[in-house]
Amino acid sequence: MAGPAISPLAPKAGFPTLPEIGGVRFAAVAAGVKYQDRDDVMLAEIAPGSAIAGVFTRSATRAAPVLDCEEKLAGLGPGEAGFAILVNSGNANAFTGAAGQGTVEAVSAEVARVLDLPPAHIFTASTGVIGEPLPPETITRKIAELQAQLAPEGAEAAARAIMTTDTFPKGAAAEVEIGSTPVKIAGFAKGSGMIAPDMATMLAYVFTDAAVPRDVLQAMLSDQVRRTFNAITVDSDTSTSDTVMVVATGQAGHAPIADVGSADGQAFAAALEGVMKDLALQIVRDGEGATKLVEVAVTGAANDADAEKVARAIANSPLVKTAIAGEDPNWGRIVMAVGKSGAKADRDRLSIRFGDVLVAEKGWVAESYREEDGAAYMRGEELLIAVDLGLGSGAATVWTCDLTHGYITINADYRS
Amino acid sequence: MAGPAISPLAPKAGFPTLPEIGGVRFAAVAAGVKYQDRDDVMLAEIAPGSAIAGVFTRSATRAAPVLDCEEKLAGLGPGEAGFAILVNSGNANAFTGAAGQGTVEAVSAEVARVLDLPPAHIFTASTGVIGEPLPPETITRKIAELQAQLAPEGAEAAARAIMTTDTFPKGAAAEVEIGSTPVKIAGFAKGSGMIAPDMATMLAYVFTDAAVPRDVLQAMLSDQVRRTFNAITVDSDTSTSDTVMVVATGQAGHAPIADVGSADGQAFAAALEGVMKDLALQIVRDGEGATKLVEVAVTGAANDADAEKVARAIANSPLVKTAIAGEDPNWGRIVMAVGKSGAKADRDRLSIRFGDVLVAEKGWVAESYREEDGAAYMRGEELLIAVDLGLGSGAATVWTCDLTHGYITINADYRS
Repeated sequence: MAGPAISPLAPKAGFPTLPEIGGVRFAAVAAGVKYQDRDDVMLAEIAPGSAIAGVFTRSATRAAPVLDCEEKLAGLGPGEAGFAILVNSGNANAFTGAAGQGTVEAVSAEVARVLDLPPAHIFTASTGVIGEPLPPETITRKIAELQAQLAPEGAEAAARAIMTTDTFPKGAAAEVEIGSTPVKIAGFAKGSGMIAPDMATMLAYVFTDAAVPRDVLQAMLSDQVRRTFNAITVDSDTSTSDTVMVVATGQAGHAPIADVGSADGQAFAAALEGVMKDLALQIVRDGEGATKLVEVAVTGAANDADAEKVARAIANSPLVKTAIAGEDPNWGRIVMAVGKSGAKADRDRLSIRFGDVLVAEKGWVAESYREEDGAAYMRGEELLIAVDLGLGSGAATVWTCDLTHGYITINADYRS
Repeated sequence: MAGPAISPLAPKAGFPTLPEIGGVRFAAVAAGVKYQDRDDVMLAEIAPGSAIAGVFTRSATRAAPVLDCEEKLAGLGPGEAGFAILVNSGNANAFTGAAGQGTVEAVSAEVARVLDLPPAHIFTASTGVIGEPLPPETITRKIAELQAQLAPEGAEAAARAIMTTDTFPKGAAAEVEIGSTPVKIAGFAKGSGMIAPDMATMLAYVFTDAAVPRDVLQAMLSDQVRRTFNAITVDSDTSTSDTVMVVATGQAGHAPIADVGSADGQAFAAALEGVMKDLALQIVRDGEGATKLVEVAVTGAANDADAEKVARAIANSPLVKTAIAGEDPNWGRIVMAVGKSGAKADRDRLSIRFGDVLVAEKGWVAESYREEDGAAYMRGEELLIAVDLGLGSGAATVWTCDLTHGYITINADYRS
């Protein structure tokens, strides 16, 4: 099933230098879960006094580690103990019956023992093949080695260890002042295929030394996920393992952010959302076989929900995505996607732009539109498809990529 | 963007010999709408006393001919005049503003004039590129030529004239006795890409010499579309032009079928549904780039709506469809699709079969399952994916095809 050579969309830059976050240390090892000759397990150790928040896939067939994380987060007391996050790639430990939960428990117990933490404070994730058993020993025998390597500067190695079909590791960072205290945020993510509406098939971990109580942190995360990780789509498929976790260690030393609405809360939330959006777009950029990054911006809908329906219909349409791959300014397929979205639309009020090029308006191709302008625009690597429905003030933005021979080649071969 | 060579799924057989239907004559000509050296307009003339019924796309951006057909069907009186159906390929006359409706009116007027029928009895359809003007003269100047060629045996030429990216013409026929009167049903269809949940992107026309009042015919059609043309998906995209029409001329000579529930009504409905399903499956078989025909059968759902959600989630998943293209028995992706469908599901009650091969049950891979059995099964050209949710008695079946390099090649090039 080898396809023609594809030039994948390159990362915007190399992996950024992530700042060290006080209270967080990382390690990565090669455990041989599936891949040879590369790290495939990462451990993050988080100091006592930190807050942790998470958002997970809503799939009805969630993997064992996801179910375990949800339960542990819900049951967290106000305690002062630290946390640990352990992630393996190569095997999703999903649809593995009772044995899957057994593996999560065995791994959690061993991490807890080695790091001297409560087992209920160990959060795990697994990404890779669905339905194959993951023997706990593969990982438990490596915990002591991981512990010995823990270091504040290990984030890039950790980011690399959780990659599956990713072609580059994904990291992002920000700094913001809370009062006069500089606060750092650093995060990394993995994800490439099985990326879809209900949070991309992806893992993302973001760390900050800000002091943010757990409920405030969770509220920020739950809100921001809608506009970041839940606003990207590669192939409309939703994974059984999607996980985003944010950790705030409080070691920057400012007074805790008790209120999302305060000036400090707003400043921190904006910086955190910037890191989340950066990571989310890196995942689309690394979409399986992607050669274009596409922003679909819908305005003028009857309401925001309708705008999102239209944006997702366009961003998920195989016909739109193949046209983009072919650099074809095929706006008829945009009209088709608007029509099938289920949102309220009026053909004669609809307008479509490719970047600054007005393509269609008032139910027909724009008078000023020249096919060569559209074609020239489509040759870019980063594209904007803007649709105004002309009905109201509803708006939504979704990011996607093109659908190429590369996607077929990757997915007709790789057992995920 | 040329992909590797693909062996498309062949038609099950050549174009069938369609029986002549008393009261219907066909013609086809080359009008040069877009294609060169092939017929691209077909005309069907239907005798007075016939009943006509239709179902159309629910797209919010329906093409001008669809809007026109809906209006004409709704306004039909009890009159005895005949009808005509005119279809062109190469241009969808969709998103063409007021000019699009003007073309429909000009074409209808000319057909009405030449065939001596009321303009309100002329039903048109257009399939092909969206958003390009369709000058009426392209077609009106050919009506007299079409009229001169009208013949009872012209169905195959008509079926060929409406093809776009189709690789073979699609026809089906049936015979059934009403009382002791033999009744014939003959139909043809086109469709290959932009095939999706809300009625495939397709045109289908079915003709019978049965005597069926218009309301009974419409009720049968509306019911059967759910299980036939609305139960197929190639790429989850929905066209702006989808149209299914059924014509009953009554010339077989039996007493009219006044009741769907009568023995005659049931017999005729079963025969009609057989023809509709046959045509629908031919469209999937000719799905763009398809090399496999896949039946997705879901049982044990909490209700039929949930079963349909699961069946569509599987049938539309790019990851499932690429795995099928790669002949990979990747049941983990089936689990993923069940999980994302939004239907009620319990991982530990779910079972999955590929044909007769039990793959997974009780939340894990089946004890008896051997990967080589799954792999051998996937090498077939016609596949069954059976999922039982173990929750209730809801059931649904959807037909789809695989997603191959051929789909990318066709759609990154073809301006549809």
